[in-house]
This record gives sequence, C-alpha cells and structure tokens, in this order.
Amino acid sequence: MTRTGGSRLVAIIEYDGTEYLGFQIQRTGRTIQGEIERALTEVTRRHCRVVGAGRTDAGVHAKGQVIHFTPSWDHSLGELHRALNAVLARDVAVVDLRVAEPGFHARYSARSREYLYTIDNRSVRSPLVQRYAHHVCTPLDAEAMNQACSCLVGEHDFVAFGWAPGGEKPNRGSDEGAAATAGAGRGTVRRVLRACCRRQGHLVYVEVEADAFLRAMVRRIVGNLLLVGSGALSAEAFAGLLRLGHRRTPGVAAPGHGLCLVKVNY
Amino acid sequence: MTRTGGSRLVAIIEYDGTEYLGFQIQRTGRTIQGEIERALTEVTRRHCRVVGAGRTDAGVHAKGQVIHFTPSWDHSLGELHRALNAVLARDVAVVDLRVAEPGFHARYSARSREYLYTIDNRSVRSPLVQRYAHHVCTPLDAEAMNQACSCLVGEHDFVAFGWAPGGEKPNRGSDEGAAATAGAGRGTVRRVLRACCRRQGHLVYVEVEADAFLRAMVRRIVGNLLLVGSGALSAEAFAGLLRLGHRRTPGVAAPGHGLCLVKVNY
Repeated sequence: MTRTGGSRLVAIIEYDGTEYLGFQIQRTGRTIQGEIERALTEVTRRHCRVVGAGRTDAGVHAKGQVIHFTPSWDHSLGELHRALNAVLARDVAVVDLRVAEPGFHARYSARSREYLYTIDNRSVRSPLVQRYAHHVCTPLDAEAMNQACSCLVGEHDFVAFGWAPGGEKPNRGSDEGAAATAGAGRGTVRRVLRACCRRQGHLVYVEVEADAFLRAMVRRIVGNLLLVGSGALSAEAFAGLLRLGHRRTPGVAAPGHGLCLVKVNY
Repeated sequence: MTRTGGSRLVAIIEYDGTEYLGFQIQRTGRTIQGEIERALTEVTRRHCRVVGAGRTDAGVHAKGQVIHFTPSWDHSLGELHRALNAVLARDVAVVDLRVAEPGFHARYSARSREYLYTIDNRSVRSPLVQRYAHHVCTPLDAEAMNQACSCLVGEHDFVAFGWAPGGEKPNRGSDEGAAATAGAGRGTVRRVLRACCRRQGHLVYVEVEADAFLRAMVRRIVGNLLLVGSGALSAEAFAGLLRLGHRRTPGVAAPGHGLCLVKVNY
C-alpha cells in the first residue's frame, strides 16, 4: 500500500467539458481545474494546487488530460483515488493515479499532446453524437482534408493558427485587428508530429499531435480544413497559411465541443 | 418534389433518451412520441398521431426508431423534413422521411428490431460514455456472456425476461409477486434471430435482434448476463431461465441509459 505523504502525484483525468469554461481556473464559473481542486480540498481538508498538461478551452473534452499535485494525505493512493472519484462531479473522473517520477512536471515534462476533432458530416444533425461532434451538413472531402493537413507536419511558425500561451488573446470582436499586429516569432513556433484526417461513416476525424499547441490551434486548423473539405480553399492556399504571418485566416476556429485531448506523452 | 397531401409517411428517428420518460406518450412528462407530435402540430398546425415501431423505455436511446404518420401538409417532403428538424428539441431528429409503401405500418410491418446494450466495464466510471453506457466495475468475461446468450436464439417463451406489451407491468416494489402470478403463454413467445456479446477495449456490447420484444426484455437479458460475466451465474443456469415460467430471475433489469434501438427491419 503506497502512502502518499508529501509525494508529488500524477493523475490521468477524463472529462466531458460541456458544462465547463475550460481547464484553467477562472475568477468565476466552473472549470475542470476548479472542480478537481474542490474535490481535493473536500477529501484532504487542505487546498492543493493542480497543474495540468494542457489548458483545454471551454467545452473541450479530455480522455487523457494529465495533472500533477502534491496533496496533504496520509492514507493510501488507492483510498485517495476512490475518495476523489466519489466526490468529483459525474462529468470528471480520475482514471489513473500514481506517485510521479522525481522531477516530473505535467506540463514541462510532456513530449507531445494528441488531440482528436470529431465532425458529424451528415445532412441531419445527430442527437447521439452532438455533445462530442461539430455538425457540418455540407459534404466534406476527407481525403482532400487529409492531404492538405500533411503540410502541418514539422516545425513551423503557427501564428496563423493561434495565440502563444503567454500572450493575451484579444477580446471577441477585436480578433482581426489584434491578430494583424501580433508579431510572428519564436513564441509561436511548434513542432507537429502528426496531422491526419479520415472518414468513418458520417463522422470525420481530424487528429493532430504536436510537442505543444498554441491557444485555439487545433480548432483554428480544423476551421480552415473545413474550407478545404467543402472545396472553398485549395490545399495550396491552406499550406500558404503557414507563411501568412498573422491570424486573418479565411476559416474561423471550429467550436470547442468537437475537440478532445486524447493523450499526453512523456 | 414530392407533395405529401394525405399520404402516410415513414420516418427514421434518432434520439438521446436521457431526458425522456420513453417513447410512448403519457399523461404527464416528456416523451419522444409527445415531442414529435408537438413538432408536427407546430409545423402543420394540426394535431397528428404518430405510431412507432418500438416503445422504448425511459432513458433508452434510438439510432433507428421508425414511425409512421399522416400529416396535413401541402408542401414538399423536403420542406416538412427541414421544418420538423428545425422545431424538434436538440435531442431528437428526423434522419430520413419518405412516403410509405401502401399498407405500411411502423409496428406491424416490422420483421425484426435490433437493440444494442453498452456496458462500460472499467474500474473507474467514464464521463465520456456515461450517457450511453451502464458502468460495471467488476471485470466481465464477455466471452462467457457471448456463449451464454447463444441459447436465446430461436423461438422461446421469454416470460422470464419481460412483460407482454398488452399486459400491465406491475408497480415498482410489487415486481416479484406480480411476476409470480403472471402466466406463461403464447403472449410471451418471441423469436430471437441474433444474440451476441463482444468486448472492445473497456466497452462490452450486447446485441439482440428479435422479431419483437417483450417489455424490458433486452434490459432483463443483460441484467442476467451480467451475472454470467461476473461468474455468479453459470451459462447452464442462464439457459435454464428460459424454462423458469416466471420473472423471478436472479438478475434485475439493467438500466435504460445503456440501451439503444439501432434498427428496425421491414
């Protein structure tokens, strides 16, 4: 039986993000981090800060978010695991909990993150997948989308597809102007390891793995890929977005509810 | 453009049953039939009765429920289709709508119904599948369940697994007593065409196709199969339930939210 007193713990978290403003704690509103810290406080009677591998946006889901934290807890790991799942909201669960390797940091130790975006591509919306898939009724050419997104693989400046995590995201409405003035620099360079798109029945999946992501990056990639899929943007024009140097892309960010953080690799 | 004036129409309906008391309209509470009739009244300005192929229970979902109805509508089928989906609640959709063959009846013309029951078989509950899967933390032997349920195939008296649709289901609490007095007869004989169980990762699926189903039949089959999967009931004892003659089975009905009416065959 592993006692956890003073040890840094690492957990794999699964959540349905529908009812949350995103992972990162905010002044008001429900967040995943806030819910986990609330559960930890309830179980351990002490507040405990949680660090996540990826700051998922509002409505985004996770099958394999990773967090670390150092709780004040003198009982076993198994007891903490069961107690947390007992008090967490139904839409958040600790899938795995263990003692972290020395020096482990959920965000800085991560080698890559894998995201999956699901599109429900049928003329009629599907009530059974609507929580986890973005409905697009125009028929999409998934093969064209797959070919187009191959250009993303490698190290690129992804300024066209998102904001550096440290930088302030402009308010809604002032998006275009702020994007134009935001400089393209080292802060928006990321290495994409895999980017592909495939169709399975009426569902179209976009998978992207990268060492790290800019804010809204997968959703902005998908938003522009949707234009490729509907024939409004050529694969060449899509590839050209990597040389754009600003965020005035033809496509806007696809909505959060289609996105899921599948796995974090260390 | 097909005009629909006076024609019987047939529709394929998909729904997330979480927020509904079941398909069949009731004096109070939300039902799928009630929601569809409300939408039809809103669109056509006349009340119109809907007949469904299967009366799914509270919380049960459908990917392919079939209904027929004869609306008062002088415009095209496509316009009716779009109008219905525009006014239906987000958790119900008309997937397909066409003019029925002469003599077609959603319930009586059906040759068979296919149901799928999903079990989330992992020690920790999964927030991403909880709406559509029943969580069972005890490890299940899906192969043993698959072998056990093969005995269901063929024509049998399924009195142990449900109520004849015409018969009154006893109130909660009086289940056992009423079940004991209910006679086993022709009214509870059904032909099962397919019954199988398979595992895919942490999900276990039970599929049953039959010419028709008794009330709660799939859920009561699954409830008893779960005992086989956990080793509490042998395959022989499960097969013996077909000769039981009453409803005092060791397993109770599995909850509705794991069940989905996948397809109705004509």
